Amino acid sequence: MKEFELLKIASEFFRDEDVEVPATMHDAAYVRFGKDFLVLTCDTVNEMCDFPPQMLPEEFGHLALAVTLSDLAACGANPLFFLNSITLRTPDTMLVRRIFRGMKKLAKRIGIKIVGGDIDRSNVLSITGFAVGHTSKIITRSGAKPGEKVYITDVTGKAELSIRELKKGKGRNNIPFPDKVFCPEPRIQEGIAISKIASTLTDISDSLAISLHNISKSSGVAIELDISKINLDPLEKFVNKQEALNLFLYGGGDYELLFTAKESDIGFEIGEVTRGESVYLNINGRKRHIKFLGYSHF
Amino acid sequence: MKEFELLKIASEFFRDEDVEVPATMHDAAYVRFGKDFLVLTCDTVNEMCDFPPQMLPEEFGHLALAVTLSDLAACGANPLFFLNSITLRTPDTMLVRRIFRGMKKLAKRIGIKIVGGDIDRSNVLSITGFAVGHTSKIITRSGAKPGEKVYITDVTGKAELSIRELKKGKGRNNIPFPDKVFCPEPRIQEGIAISKIASTLTDISDSLAISLHNISKSSGVAIELDISKINLDPLEKFVNKQEALNLFLYGGGDYELLFTAKESDIGFEIGEVTRGESVYLNINGRKRHIKFLGYSHF
Repeated sequence: MKEFELLKIASEFFRDEDVEVPATMHDAAYVRFGKDFLVLTCDTVNEMCDFPPQMLPEEFGHLALAVTLSDLAACGANPLFFLNSITLRTPDTMLVRRIFRGMKKLAKRIGIKIVGGDIDRSNVLSITGFAVGHTSKIITRSGAKPGEKVYITDVTGKAELSIRELKKGKGRNNIPFPDKVFCPEPRIQEGIAISKIASTLTDISDSLAISLHNISKSSGVAIELDISKINLDPLEKFVNKQEALNLFLYGGGDYELLFTAKESDIGFEIGEVTRGESVYLNINGRKRHIKFLGYSHF
Repeated sequence: MKEFELLKIASEFFRDEDVEVPATMHDAAYVRFGKDFLVLTCDTVNEMCDFPPQMLPEEFGHLALAVTLSDLAACGANPLFFLNSITLRTPDTMLVRRIFRGMKKLAKRIGIKIVGGDIDRSNVLSITGFAVGHTSKIITRSGAKPGEKVYITDVTGKAELSIRELKKGKGRNNIPFPDKVFCPEPRIQEGIAISKIASTLTDISDSLAISLHNISKSSGVAIELDISKINLDPLEKFVNKQEALNLFLYGGGDYELLFTAKESDIGFEIGEVTRGESVYLNINGRKRHIKFLGYSHF
């Protein structure tokens, strides 16, 4: 996947920076400030990749903030400050108002302060969000140990399934999970709670498979999902078993959290950490390899 | 100017946030953190507005960092951390390497850590930069008092003059001030020194006139420039007197600093703060009004 080649270049260039955890190693960067850590992250969403034609401008603003908050959630960080840089074709004041309205509504609910921004011209409508969070503890993708269990905050695949139905021509209220597409909920409170009990934590934006591989590789362990533990009913209402499994593993855009822990009351258990490497799915005793596959911008 | 209408909307939406200084009131936001302040800012540059065809990818990276650093300089802040979000048409690894090379070179020299980023797809090549700085003192555009003097770190208009010559077909080495276009120098050290002695401080990115009006309005004072104090020789080598004056007042893209102080060893004195409102130029005893005019994205 080309996107990961590009991120690898970033990692090569900037790995010698003297910081606790650069963002190339996790969903966001941890930098020491005083006795605690600031968590810094940025994300761009634009009309070419991220805004379906049915999406409202208020939802552009919501999404830009939500995807950035999801990175903070993946660090168990308290959200503090948000800035955004918007590019527009024309100085459409109504469009800007509607974007800000959606952004502000989510910001107020989550409790993050929107402190600045920038508006520029471009042929592509885009919003880049920057978030600053705060935590006293570092949790990353490395630290998973054999014997621990693997959890997710919700079954993945709902966003991809919904987008497919949209693309087939269904209306925005007639797709299976409209909220997953139009106003995904960042798992901030879950992230803070999980970070206290988990050994690793990451968000799932490109696919569950990619996030699993990232933890497996960073922690130097294998991960084995157990099909008997996974409830795919929400997806199987709409597609067959095989299709539901594919959506669950390889669908993008869900913004749920994935974590490993000895035991957790939060989330759904889907498998376990074992010795070895890579990621597998156990179906009635038969181990199948899970591919490194998911959403890619290129 | 349409751009300021858009920024006014941002100000309306987010002025109730409980922060020390929101970015809508200055070049960057000041937020309290511990006993000091973090300074937060973001800026987008793209090939439609900011990269002349003669510009090299290394210079895209330099520019993206430099314009963001200029906002920190305008707060007298020490640069700490930088993140960037790049959008590309295709996953061109060589282009990304060259952008990072230019960015890294400037970052090393200035001493800011590049800790994260994001690469996405778009039809327009763009780089959004996000910088975190640190200061123990707030300096803004309000605070200028009648009797103080007005200073700039260098004569403005050089960037606009150089871009005009480029557009006429001159080669990148045959324009008057190539560095002002291809690798502008953020005034970080000057900003830190100025913040210790000045009553107001801002950067000049859209034009000197706009920055003067911003200080005049925020401080509730008039500003009177004195033509006899202003050395336009660097511009008059290339254009006539009237043209040089227009470039000086209304040209964009210089990234110099403008400040007011009782007295300063740094920078060039260009006029004084007086009672009243708006901005004027004194030419041999005749006061002319300086318009609110400069570079605008729209």
